[in-house]
Amino acid sequence: MAAAQETPTASAPPDDRRSAKWHRRRDEVIDRSARLFAEQGFHATSTTELCEANELGKGALYYYIGSKEELLALIIDRVMDEVLAGAERAAVAEGTPGDRLRELGREYLDVIFHYPDHVRVFLHEFTAVTGENAVALRARRRAFEDIVEQVIADGATSGAFEVHDARLTARAWLGTHNYTYLWLRPGGDLSAREVADHFARIFLGGIER
Amino acid sequence: MAAAQETPTASAPPDDRRSAKWHRRRDEVIDRSARLFAEQGFHATSTTELCEANELGKGALYYYIGSKEELLALIIDRVMDEVLAGAERAAVAEGTPGDRLRELGREYLDVIFHYPDHVRVFLHEFTAVTGENAVALRARRRAFEDIVEQVIADGATSGAFEVHDARLTARAWLGTHNYTYLWLRPGGDLSAREVADHFARIFLGGIER
Repeated sequence: MAAAQETPTASAPPDDRRSAKWHRRRDEVIDRSARLFAEQGFHATSTTELCEANELGKGALYYYIGSKEELLALIIDRVMDEVLAGAERAAVAEGTPGDRLRELGREYLDVIFHYPDHVRVFLHEFTAVTGENAVALRARRRAFEDIVEQVIADGATSGAFEVHDARLTARAWLGTHNYTYLWLRPGGDLSAREVADHFARIFLGGIER
Repeated sequence: MAAAQETPTASAPPDDRRSAKWHRRRDEVIDRSARLFAEQGFHATSTTELCEANELGKGALYYYIGSKEELLALIIDRVMDEVLAGAERAAVAEGTPGDRLRELGREYLDVIFHYPDHVRVFLHEFTAVTGENAVALRARRRAFEDIVEQVIADGATSGAFEVHDARLTARAWLGTHNYTYLWLRPGGDLSAREVADHFARIFLGGIER
């Protein structure tokens, strides 16, 4: 990817030394670019199109994103931050294991509802992320899946759930929720919370003793 | 897409006048191209790469596929043929509504297990299909979703299932099964049938009275 080589990363300060304004503008770039990648795919989107969508010249664009692949990693990070924060809250919520699994669904669908473009890019394009970014991304994806599996396994240990295979049950749960990015939108008939509670009713009906 | 304009479709005979050998070779082209699109995406795959993967010159490639977009539609058709045939068998199978829903899952995961590349291309790239092909594709996708919804609605009507929203319940069922294309592979710990029956146990536990 020739674009990446143009980036003056060697002389750039680390992200945590940047101003609040720089971070706000970068978040805007991430969100607009997520829309573009979601619509036409990561590989099919040119640097020129990214510049146009963000109303930035090439140099200014790279000032915020480092490289096109870095931008992809930033988009996925932005949504994974929210997914993980929500899952960590849900995993320690009060109540029964069933309450925690229901809360996990509410938190996750709330993120999908607010970031459908980022989620689509995540699910469709994560194989385009390489190197260290790919290692970090896989670890965070796995961390989320592990939280779901752990909530299910804890419910089985406590006797609240009857589960034959916690990993496979977690995969069923993940599939049920992931797929909503295709149709769950602001302005639809149902809120994210209503959908989450509907799914929880089916899912918990299937595993609660 | 310049490639499409090179295609001598005007003088080509309709597909049903082609020889059995032509059809066999075309199925090979479809399957090898599905692998390539699944690995690197539809837009990112060049005609040159398709020629190399299929050991065909450009003219010979277009003799089988018409255009790159036509090839994409053929890949999706190939897997949708199997998905719909399986769903139609399951929808009229003997037994209870629960038996039919379990059978629907077995049929669907059997297809995903055998065509993971085609399914990935279908789920990731269907927005790249345009015009008449897109209309036909949406209709077939909808036909499959309608069969799932109908089996669930019939179960509710007969009193076998307790379902608040058959469409949303169908979406939960579809999500649960669709996402297996990410990990369900020959040589894994579980057969497609074992996974389907595991999912059916959870799902039916959640909706059967």
